[in-house]
Amino acid sequence: MKNIMLIVLDGLGDRPNQILSGKTALQAAFRPNLNHLIREGQGGLMTPIAPGIRAGSDTSHLSLLGYDPEKFYSGRGPFEAMGLGLEVRPGDVAFRANFGTTDNNGVVTDRRAGRSAEGTSLLAKSLNMEIDGVRFFVREGVEHRAALVMRSQGLSDKITDSDPHETGKPVKRVMPVSPEGEFTADVLNRYLDAARKILMDHEANKNRRKSGKPVANELLLRGPGKAPDLMDFSEMHGMKGAVVAGIPMITGIGGLLGMHTLKPRGSTGTLDSDFTSKLLAAADLTKKYDYVLVNVKATDVAGHDGDAIAKRDAIERIDRAIGEMMENVDQDLVIAVTGDHATPCSLKDHSGDPVPVLFRSRGALTDRSQFFDEFSASAGMWRIRSIDVMNIVKEMADRSEKYGA
Amino acid sequence: MKNIMLIVLDGLGDRPNQILSGKTALQAAFRPNLNHLIREGQGGLMTPIAPGIRAGSDTSHLSLLGYDPEKFYSGRGPFEAMGLGLEVRPGDVAFRANFGTTDNNGVVTDRRAGRSAEGTSLLAKSLNMEIDGVRFFVREGVEHRAALVMRSQGLSDKITDSDPHETGKPVKRVMPVSPEGEFTADVLNRYLDAARKILMDHEANKNRRKSGKPVANELLLRGPGKAPDLMDFSEMHGMKGAVVAGIPMITGIGGLLGMHTLKPRGSTGTLDSDFTSKLLAAADLTKKYDYVLVNVKATDVAGHDGDAIAKRDAIERIDRAIGEMMENVDQDLVIAVTGDHATPCSLKDHSGDPVPVLFRSRGALTDRSQFFDEFSASAGMWRIRSIDVMNIVKEMADRSEKYGA
Repeated sequence: MKNIMLIVLDGLGDRPNQILSGKTALQAAFRPNLNHLIREGQGGLMTPIAPGIRAGSDTSHLSLLGYDPEKFYSGRGPFEAMGLGLEVRPGDVAFRANFGTTDNNGVVTDRRAGRSAEGTSLLAKSLNMEIDGVRFFVREGVEHRAALVMRSQGLSDKITDSDPHETGKPVKRVMPVSPEGEFTADVLNRYLDAARKILMDHEANKNRRKSGKPVANELLLRGPGKAPDLMDFSEMHGMKGAVVAGIPMITGIGGLLGMHTLKPRGSTGTLDSDFTSKLLAAADLTKKYDYVLVNVKATDVAGHDGDAIAKRDAIERIDRAIGEMMENVDQDLVIAVTGDHATPCSLKDHSGDPVPVLFRSRGALTDRSQFFDEFSASAGMWRIRSIDVMNIVKEMADRSEKYGA
Repeated sequence: MKNIMLIVLDGLGDRPNQILSGKTALQAAFRPNLNHLIREGQGGLMTPIAPGIRAGSDTSHLSLLGYDPEKFYSGRGPFEAMGLGLEVRPGDVAFRANFGTTDNNGVVTDRRAGRSAEGTSLLAKSLNMEIDGVRFFVREGVEHRAALVMRSQGLSDKITDSDPHETGKPVKRVMPVSPEGEFTADVLNRYLDAARKILMDHEANKNRRKSGKPVANELLLRGPGKAPDLMDFSEMHGMKGAVVAGIPMITGIGGLLGMHTLKPRGSTGTLDSDFTSKLLAAADLTKKYDYVLVNVKATDVAGHDGDAIAKRDAIERIDRAIGEMMENVDQDLVIAVTGDHATPCSLKDHSGDPVPVLFRSRGALTDRSQFFDEFSASAGMWRIRSIDVMNIVKEMADRSEKYGA
């Protein structure tokens, strides 16, 4: 049996960029190590989830880890909360939230409180509390954004939003949509009443008033989701697994699956992350864990920024780091490289494009693929979906069971 | 409408072999007829079941025949029993079995009775009997292995193993795991009591004692499975179908589907099988049957032996036989060639690698594939799963119904 490393270059896929003479960031990058790996191994194209689907990082990573999101994904709430660094445990109910502004009658005058992050960190902290045994955790995000996690036994996500989704409408009472949501809706309404009082009198809002900004006096909740109680990775796959990432959503998913998680020193989840130390840390973990997933976020960040040059440069630095890493791994390690989705610089958002994939395992078949990019990888043998990746690497690592006789 | 022949080269897929200068057996073989067929037709890669799945011959043949094993496969018992040459009918309950050794207290001292086949043929015959209208059939396999088939109305596979799966433990009473298993468990326990007495006093075991071998005084049962009542092939596909094979598991599957089955003279299921007479017999059947599947086992045997030279040589002889066959078939015959799975010589077992596939039908599209092997076939148009093969050949034979208007 061999060990496995999956390197996920977040948002790797790209489209032609004028500034790169019509090339994708990957095509334009000097990437001798990635090209060497695909030449030694097998290549192809992978569609995250399914052809034409614009995958999120959460759904795509779940499926790369062998958990079909059609069966296991319970909405964005829990994953957005993890993305803001909140711990989410199975059974927790989580929401996406905005800090918003209401008038004296509770009518929403600004759903985004001026899009200002001023004081939201302090406001969020002030909203952590416990009511009737239910613990509430709030964390601020970018601008007016935030997330709320509720933790207790027997919570339900069968409840409505408090966000009216329109200005000029009053904040909504949370209502159960089925009987099992009754307790959760009731305790949540009491929480929101308490939160409203805290926010109204909060020092941070006095400062916002002084600086002429709309006050952040309401936490508007939407998209409740219950964190799924997923089968542990070790039980699901018979492997000890680890996740290495600089961003909390990805380590959060690992945590939800009972995997070892690591945010290496110098790993920032941004363009200036230290790719070498991250990949060396991952290489080190392959000595103790059967399966290691490493997420590198920089490619996605550059894609969202629409900065093709930065994306190309990040890929070149990642390629060098992969070269260094390869000198520190067991020859028998099964290595796969792909993206969790495309984030084309021309789109500044995720797209449903296929992304290149490579598998390298000593003694395995090779194929006609020579270069690791969106165009050339199609010379290779594979046309797969993200859910197939785990089966393929397990098989290459002699870790799969025969199906039949 | 045209007729169809599917040639399944069992375990065809391979990985690079050092002794063949890094080539697969197929790449190394002189195979002008296979190359001619793919050049005239369409090529590509097929993953048995799904990417990364290590298929058995049973699950893969079911799906090649258009029966999705996810829906229809009921465990290895019935297929292993067929593999030993026992007839298995829908509703039968079948087990994998070992001849084992127990002490006077019924504690298992050797789960494999010294791995010896001495006398197991006679022992197996002595265990065929009928109790309360349930007929029991035993057949010996390689070394200590055997299979048991129970035949009656109303049998259930909702029962436990008698095999304790460990030495030093007593043989287990078979227990129902749901109420429908009660009768089956009860009659099976009475059968095992009777079998034990027969084995203990059997001449073959006296000889084993004399020669110092552990006695085979217990039939240890595991993996009960009920043979599925599958829709007849003719009803499923609107075609009269035949299966030509040298090994009982494959003709057994044909039998279970109500297909005509043929083991041609000279077809042995081994490396020295007479491929020409087998393929000519299959060609002959295409005049009477709409669909003919031919299984050639030699490639799998060589793969399990780890003998790349023998695999290459077998492919060369099969290629010549295909050439002769082509002179004896209707020009309009739709011909497909693939493997049911890979059996790489370097692994000596099934793997989840894709296998090359070709489809040749007069007047059909052609593609860029030029050579029939694991590497070159990827130049062709197809990336499919085994379950797709039946739809493709039916469509090429003008036998498919329009889906929609």
